Amino acid sequence: MNRRAVVLLSGGMDSAVVLAHLVRGGHEAHALSFDYGQRHRHELACAARVARQVGAASHRVASIDLRAFGASALTADIAVPKDRDVAHSHDIPVTYVPARNTVFLSHALAMAEAIEACHIGIGVNAVDYSGYPDCRPAFVEAFERLANLATRAGVEATERGGRWMTVHTPLLDLSKAQIVRRAVELGVDLSLTSSCYDPSPEGRACGRCDACQLRARGFADAGLPPEA
Amino acid sequence: MNRRAVVLLSGGMDSAVVLAHLVRGGHEAHALSFDYGQRHRHELACAARVARQVGAASHRVASIDLRAFGASALTADIAVPKDRDVAHSHDIPVTYVPARNTVFLSHALAMAEAIEACHIGIGVNAVDYSGYPDCRPAFVEAFERLANLATRAGVEATERGGRWMTVHTPLLDLSKAQIVRRAVELGVDLSLTSSCYDPSPEGRACGRCDACQLRARGFADAGLPPEA
Repeated sequence: MNRRAVVLLSGGMDSAVVLAHLVRGGHEAHALSFDYGQRHRHELACAARVARQVGAASHRVASIDLRAFGASALTADIAVPKDRDVAHSHDIPVTYVPARNTVFLSHALAMAEAIEACHIGIGVNAVDYSGYPDCRPAFVEAFERLANLATRAGVEATERGGRWMTVHTPLLDLSKAQIVRRAVELGVDLSLTSSCYDPSPEGRACGRCDACQLRARGFADAGLPPEA
Repeated sequence: MNRRAVVLLSGGMDSAVVLAHLVRGGHEAHALSFDYGQRHRHELACAARVARQVGAASHRVASIDLRAFGASALTADIAVPKDRDVAHSHDIPVTYVPARNTVFLSHALAMAEAIEACHIGIGVNAVDYSGYPDCRPAFVEAFERLANLATRAGVEATERGGRWMTVHTPLLDLSKAQIVRRAVELGVDLSLTSSCYDPSPEGRACGRCDACQLRARGFADAGLPPEA
């Protein structure tokens, strides 16, 4: 088993911290982003800058056709909700994209097997998994199990009595404030990241969607000054 | 739970039989094919014709970037093996595409949730699963489990004590000859399907790759005359 990893990198804060965590932990980390017709495509430029700043071994953007599957405010013509009371909402929000993390992880798995990596990193965390089913620990465990059954590398490792793929979720139990603190510890330049679901064409955050609210609260709770 | 289904349709014989099986069984079956940079893109035209002939409710082609992940004779610049002794080979062949069925099923899952289908059909079978890890029953079961954890629909059904997604694999234990017989029973026009891994630009089968050999043997064992 080697130290090569594929890290899902969205351009947001969370995945930047996962990338930095694996790079600082001695992994050769290859970043993978998706152009899936998201309205916040600005995040792809952020992902490229983050990959460089944090020290990814490579950065690749895969195009996928998730827009064809519609049914989410992030990909279809549904308004992004603003000014919600995110602290007290436990519903699955309309920004949920059907099976998005399953699709992203399956592409990461294909890339991992192709480049002979046996680690995948993904920035799911406790703040998200109250709302998104594909951010929960049970989902991640089920995917890891699938990965080891689905691939030549997984089957060969199992036959040797070992295990091939490990899915790393270093943020799983962290609050947004803890993620912000971890970013600072790991030297991630958070000004390069973008969390907003509905930025302006120039990439300016709206400040009002769930993601902006959670980010601002994370900064405040971590004792950092608000972002410009 | 409704009767709506997403069926992975490659343009080959096996998935055509799965589609016909579900349509004849009373499902509203929506076919999903992939343009993934495969060298045998001719199969996409076959898929469209099969969808029409068999009676799919719709047919959609999703573009995905699997070529970027290389490492297979079907997507990279590696020769398709010819004249192999397919009856006595149990290795994973070079035509294996890393994690292909995981990627395909995850897209089918996204589409299923978006169109409110709770069935997925896939043409994996016993002939393949000696060679491809992602055709084995254990893989299919692990995916079904993941599907019910990964999605809003799965979580909601589980909370009501039910189950959302069923993955249908009606060919799982069939030989190629049994699949050919099933195609005839179900009225599938096999002349519309293409199994070859390396057809001519006009779509003419090579007759020598593993897929052509298995298909020809299936016809012979089913007592049908060889194809023109």
